Amino acid sequence: MNLMILSPIGAAVALIYAYYLANKVTKQPEGTEQMSKISASIRLGADAYLKREYSSVIKFFALVFAILFGLSMAGFMDIFIPISFLTGGFFSGLAGYFGMKIATSANARTAWAAKNSLNSGLRLAFSAGSVMGFVVVGLGLLDVSLWYYFLQYWFRALPEAARVAKISSLMLTFGMGASFLALFARVGGGIFTKAADVGADLVGKVEAGIPEDDPRNPAVIADNVGDNVGDVAGMGADLYESYMGARVSAAALGVAAGLGLAGFVLPMALAGFGVLASFIGTFFVKTEEGADQKKLLGSLRKGTYTAGILVAVGAYFLCKAILPAENVVGIYAAIVSGLIAGIAIGFFTEYYTDSSYKPTQNLSGTAETGAATIIINGLALGMKSTSIPVLIVGISVLVSYYAAGGASTFTMGLYGVGISAVGMLSTLAITLATDAYGPVADNAGGIAEMTGLGEEVRERTDALDALGNTTAATGKGFAIGSAALTALALIISFVDAVNKIDPAALNLSITNPPVLIGLFIGGMLPFLFSAMTMEAVGRAAQSIVVEVRRQFKTIPGLMEGTADPDYKSCVDLCTKSAQKEMILPALLGIASPVVVGLVLGVNGVAGMLASSTVSGFVLACMMSNAGGAWDNAKKYIEAGNHGGKGSEPHKAAVVGDTVGDPFKDTSGPSINILIKLLSVVAIVFVPVVLSFSLIK
Amino acid sequence: MNLMILSPIGAAVALIYAYYLANKVTKQPEGTEQMSKISASIRLGADAYLKREYSSVIKFFALVFAILFGLSMAGFMDIFIPISFLTGGFFSGLAGYFGMKIATSANARTAWAAKNSLNSGLRLAFSAGSVMGFVVVGLGLLDVSLWYYFLQYWFRALPEAARVAKISSLMLTFGMGASFLALFARVGGGIFTKAADVGADLVGKVEAGIPEDDPRNPAVIADNVGDNVGDVAGMGADLYESYMGARVSAAALGVAAGLGLAGFVLPMALAGFGVLASFIGTFFVKTEEGADQKKLLGSLRKGTYTAGILVAVGAYFLCKAILPAENVVGIYAAIVSGLIAGIAIGFFTEYYTDSSYKPTQNLSGTAETGAATIIINGLALGMKSTSIPVLIVGISVLVSYYAAGGASTFTMGLYGVGISAVGMLSTLAITLATDAYGPVADNAGGIAEMTGLGEEVRERTDALDALGNTTAATGKGFAIGSAALTALALIISFVDAVNKIDPAALNLSITNPPVLIGLFIGGMLPFLFSAMTMEAVGRAAQSIVVEVRRQFKTIPGLMEGTADPDYKSCVDLCTKSAQKEMILPALLGIASPVVVGLVLGVNGVAGMLASSTVSGFVLACMMSNAGGAWDNAKKYIEAGNHGGKGSEPHKAAVVGDTVGDPFKDTSGPSINILIKLLSVVAIVFVPVVLSFSLIK
Repeated sequence: MNLMILSPIGAAVALIYAYYLANKVTKQPEGTEQMSKISASIRLGADAYLKREYSSVIKFFALVFAILFGLSMAGFMDIFIPISFLTGGFFSGLAGYFGMKIATSANARTAWAAKNSLNSGLRLAFSAGSVMGFVVVGLGLLDVSLWYYFLQYWFRALPEAARVAKISSLMLTFGMGASFLALFARVGGGIFTKAADVGADLVGKVEAGIPEDDPRNPAVIADNVGDNVGDVAGMGADLYESYMGARVSAAALGVAAGLGLAGFVLPMALAGFGVLASFIGTFFVKTEEGADQKKLLGSLRKGTYTAGILVAVGAYFLCKAILPAENVVGIYAAIVSGLIAGIAIGFFTEYYTDSSYKPTQNLSGTAETGAATIIINGLALGMKSTSIPVLIVGISVLVSYYAAGGASTFTMGLYGVGISAVGMLSTLAITLATDAYGPVADNAGGIAEMTGLGEEVRERTDALDALGNTTAATGKGFAIGSAALTALALIISFVDAVNKIDPAALNLSITNPPVLIGLFIGGMLPFLFSAMTMEAVGRAAQSIVVEVRRQFKTIPGLMEGTADPDYKSCVDLCTKSAQKEMILPALLGIASPVVVGLVLGVNGVAGMLASSTVSGFVLACMMSNAGGAWDNAKKYIEAGNHGGKGSEPHKAAVVGDTVGDPFKDTSGPSINILIKLLSVVAIVFVPVVLSFSLIK
Repeated sequence: MNLMILSPIGAAVALIYAYYLANKVTKQPEGTEQMSKISASIRLGADAYLKREYSSVIKFFALVFAILFGLSMAGFMDIFIPISFLTGGFFSGLAGYFGMKIATSANARTAWAAKNSLNSGLRLAFSAGSVMGFVVVGLGLLDVSLWYYFLQYWFRALPEAARVAKISSLMLTFGMGASFLALFARVGGGIFTKAADVGADLVGKVEAGIPEDDPRNPAVIADNVGDNVGDVAGMGADLYESYMGARVSAAALGVAAGLGLAGFVLPMALAGFGVLASFIGTFFVKTEEGADQKKLLGSLRKGTYTAGILVAVGAYFLCKAILPAENVVGIYAAIVSGLIAGIAIGFFTEYYTDSSYKPTQNLSGTAETGAATIIINGLALGMKSTSIPVLIVGISVLVSYYAAGGASTFTMGLYGVGISAVGMLSTLAITLATDAYGPVADNAGGIAEMTGLGEEVRERTDALDALGNTTAATGKGFAIGSAALTALALIISFVDAVNKIDPAALNLSITNPPVLIGLFIGGMLPFLFSAMTMEAVGRAAQSIVVEVRRQFKTIPGLMEGTADPDYKSCVDLCTKSAQKEMILPALLGIASPVVVGLVLGVNGVAGMLASSTVSGFVLACMMSNAGGAWDNAKKYIEAGNHGGKGSEPHKAAVVGDTVGDPFKDTSGPSINILIKLLSVVAIVFVPVVLSFSLIK
């Protein structure tokens, strides 16, 4: 039996389950009329943002499609590449749309459910997160399955070996549409959410002196919308892209390693099986009343660990059923090493950013000597925190390469590296569920606050929200780690793609000057990209500050609570800023591989890809972890340490937190997409670069 | 005629000129008794620091010498390697000692000379800087010349080709001693100077409310000592190392390219000729009374540009006299490209950090919305500022490689890259003079303030000091650029060194997993290293804060100016902290290539070296430029913009400046040494790694 069938089965299970959960969630009551009203405002804002984002992204899709179509007419690429570019973008956009729909439907419902019990609140928020998780993997599996069966049919005249080679090399480029959309989603969403957050805080909390999530703050709805467009839609698009990239590059490497159809099918079947494991895992997520954060975290962990163990067991039988006997153990070890690496990176991210561990506790102490020292030490913490993830990735690559047999067969070793990325991402459905749960709980807390649901409910939503911060940190580590492994697999696939057309063009030695210069350029790109996104947040936040100030000045009765602020204008401003500001960083990601390729040739591109992956991985870790640590150091002080809320150390910590905002929610996560997009664009343009580059 | 003779001639000219200038400087009057007294305190502190540093560094030298000696006894390296390790350290230490001696002698004299005229002050400070510049290159040339003639004699029985090959590969490792000392000097000096600076500011300026350089501040002498040990001794050791590394690696590459003795001699002769050009250049540095900063800068530039033009002309005749006819034009072009790259990087560093340009002016505006925004935008500025230096290095490598003939002969192209680094560094004597001039002027300003020399003098020393900040920025850019090119040359030499012993061991493709993992580790190392040095500054500054507070509390009459503070205890504390804190970062630099080599083999080391050079270059640019821009943004506000001194924006800018301190004066510059040291250690340990590595 061709186990490829697990891929559409997984897609079906995932989508049906997501549909079932979505139905269940939306059947819950939304609470009071005021709650419905606020939830509707957030929904409206999020819808408006997404509509506007998609309509401006469509123009870019049309442009790139036209270029790709022209190139395919000129014989530089297969016609399926421009078409798949559209389908990839479509499915990725759809996943973001569904994820955000359910998240914005579930926020008030979660707050209302928390009125009953902590467990009801958790179950509801987690169900909403699960919809996101399962929709992402479901559509990801569906996209690949549809294309696979269609291309099998289309190329049915070819003998099997040639057909599989053709299909695998074609599908390698199918991640580009998803990557492209993800970049806009992550960058745009990241700018939106932080502009709203910073804008709301600077005027509301600091100048007007009203608490967070206060309904009098004109930017409060924009802030809540931001949680959804940044953390839900952005994160979903990011991981959708990794999920696509990891599978298709592993498949291409499997075929290149001489495994034929088996090499192609294994990553797809593994991903399909991962959905089933995740499905079972979700049933282990529940908690009892009065559970503390440790217990809550434990209940989520039970779900992800169960799924992980199921995959670890099932993968062995999959390998046995699909691969030649001599490859079973090695490839299986590669899968497990990826699975473990993902969990380990998540754990160390938590270690560096959670205030229950030393690093963040110590960081909060440095606030006692002022803002400068907590900034310096936060940056140092972020920099230091990069070393363990680097070692984990290094060990994982080493283990999967040698276990798969790299010492004797180079290409088989590389397949091991590729399949380890799929292993890491196999339980994505449930990992993403625990992550997307966070913004729902965050929104629920905001709604509880705005509608005055009472102390007990607020305490429960706070507990859920605090947990959300931890899962967000773990999730970010996982997203970075999987992006790095995926990018690596894509780089190797890039080299393989060149090798198929013109092996003589390759001289990948790091002493070859084009490679060397490519390394320099690639090392710099994530820095330039981060600078762009950070400045974009600054500009966007500035415009929100001006608008919020204007409303406080010109709307009579606003501060007294007798008049409503104009929420919509803030949402509109954020939307417009995000749309405008996301273009330049996106262009950098798309144009760099082409421009570098046309000057330095394929070797220069390879150098650039390797170095941007390394430098991007390190920088993203640093920014995410420094940002997370500042955030939690502030919360740790607010919990009564080092003088507590309102003290001088607290003010210093607020500065740290504000610096960390664009770090952890805009620039850091956007780098994940950048490094994958660079690789996938490079793959698509291999024939063009080979033909026209200045340096061969 | 063997033009190698230019090397000892250059050494002689440099050292005699330095001696002459030093004599001239010390013959000038030191001013009032109080001025002498303060200058003596600074001198005493600096001497004490250096003595202590050298005595603790000697232990590490003994340890490493013992290891190297043992390895040479076991047949893993030539006996000359451990010996040259000592001589390299000795000469580098000597250069730092002389440079600091003269700088601490010239400070009061410069203040006193400024009483006569601006020109006298400039000439005196510049003379002191020149002593440093010429001593560094003089000893650098002397070290290499002595070894060259000695080894020529020692191996006289060998035929010329074999002899040159032997000498060039031996001397390649001779930079290790200098590197090793430089790391301690830069890291220790950087920690000292910033701990004193931050400590003095936090308590003196912020808590006690007394002005900068106030003699009542117990840390004021330590602060002035810090300028000398960090900016003079540290910078000197850094560039001494680049100067060594660039020449010996170019020489080795020249021999590897088949140029024989000519390939070896050219970099040495070029460096010797550069001393003569720099010597002539110094006579063009003078100014008239009432010169504004632009004119002052112009007068320094006249000196460096004259030297640059002389080298650009002379290098052609050197190439013609030394090289085979077909290589003259190409290698000459490579030299000029390095020369231009050095100037260009310096210019763009100035552009990004000087408040007469847009970036820093805009940055100062972001202080209006608080500390968080100026921090975010300063980091973004630093990140953005990395792209042009990367492109300059890239273009320079490309031009020198292809001009030298890399398209047809790979090794000749690499020689082009190596010689371009020597071209960049050829005018080091005068470049370093304009740089080391800064701390002297800074100290002079401090002494003028402490001794109440009057408004007019203070204005003149301020003008000299402001200029010093600009030359320091340019100098930092130059130091980073030359470190990157030197490191590149060393990496290529590393590969060549492996190639000579076991060509089969090399697989430098970036898809080879050990290379790939090496890239990851190398990309992370500068981050980890920076984290360590930043945290070290924080801890050291903390101890100074405690001590200064103690003195203000326990010494009666201190605030009233009736009692003297205990300057010495602060100097001692800084010294002790710096000694303690420099060890761990230094170990990281020394151990990494060996540990990575023993696990991942030579290919892993090559990946690590390439990536650490790239990531280190980018990070160092970012940190230095962000730090410089914050510093000057603060000064720009103090000059009356955005509310001026004491305003809220000014307070925000002070936070930025404080964050920038360890960035630009400790971590950033120390990375220069790290990347060179990694390479040179890797070269020394090639035979060991080849024999014992886990992965071959």
